[in-house]
Amino acid sequence: MKTIKRRSFLTNVAITSALGAVVLPSEAKSKKKTFIHHVYFWLKNPSSEADRSKLIEGLTALSKVPTIRFHHIGLPASTNRSVIERSYSVSWMLFFDNLAEEEIYQTHPIHLKFIADYSHLWEKVTVFDSEEV
Amino acid sequence: MKTIKRRSFLTNVAITSALGAVVLPSEAKSKKKTFIHHVYFWLKNPSSEADRSKLIEGLTALSKVPTIRFHHIGLPASTNRSVIERSYSVSWMLFFDNLAEEEIYQTHPIHLKFIADYSHLWEKVTVFDSEEV
Repeated sequence: MKTIKRRSFLTNVAITSALGAVVLPSEAKSKKKTFIHHVYFWLKNPSSEADRSKLIEGLTALSKVPTIRFHHIGLPASTNRSVIERSYSVSWMLFFDNLAEEEIYQTHPIHLKFIADYSHLWEKVTVFDSEEV
Repeated sequence: MKTIKRRSFLTNVAITSALGAVVLPSEAKSKKKTFIHHVYFWLKNPSSEADRSKLIEGLTALSKVPTIRFHHIGLPASTNRSVIERSYSVSWMLFFDNLAEEEIYQTHPIHLKFIADYSHLWEKVTVFDSEEV
């Protein structure tokens, strides 16, 4: 029974992972093409840590939109080569199962509330939408 | 026994998933900050499907660098709003466990070979490196 119990524990951990985030078993994954929505924000006051924290707070709430499969909130890394763009303030990267799910996100009430409550903070956003080949 | 067998099957599937790609159980995940390296390529001949396929072939080989935790090769989606940048040819998005692992990737022989063999294809690359908050 010990072995079986351990398996059972592992199952629970791994299933939580598979449901809670990006990854499906490889068989399922091969059938879909992940849609990446990557947004870079430039704040009006890039030196204001308070404004940056406020935006991150807003993005954290925004991450609750149910069609989002995975989200990542990032800051410019310390890497600094000529090809690296590091003038942005905050990176917001989302995975969706497909374009239709991303469109649901665009008009979801949580997204509209995010724009209403936080858009005064940024000067510019640039978006890169990429569909898996 | 039937239930146990089924659990066992699920365990195998889910562990393959957890090992083969991005996600670790949430407990492990909370301890690390994913580093995103997102590269956008602009081809010299953006209308050449052959050049685009060749670059994708190169990126597929490049994905074998062992420190890469997850990779995504993408093309501009059909979304088209004023804030969306869609003039690039190919998107190349990588997850690393941390900056040090990304630095190993930069100088890895597979990466150097990729640059030697494929850099004649592109006119410009822009890189966004983001560390999880």
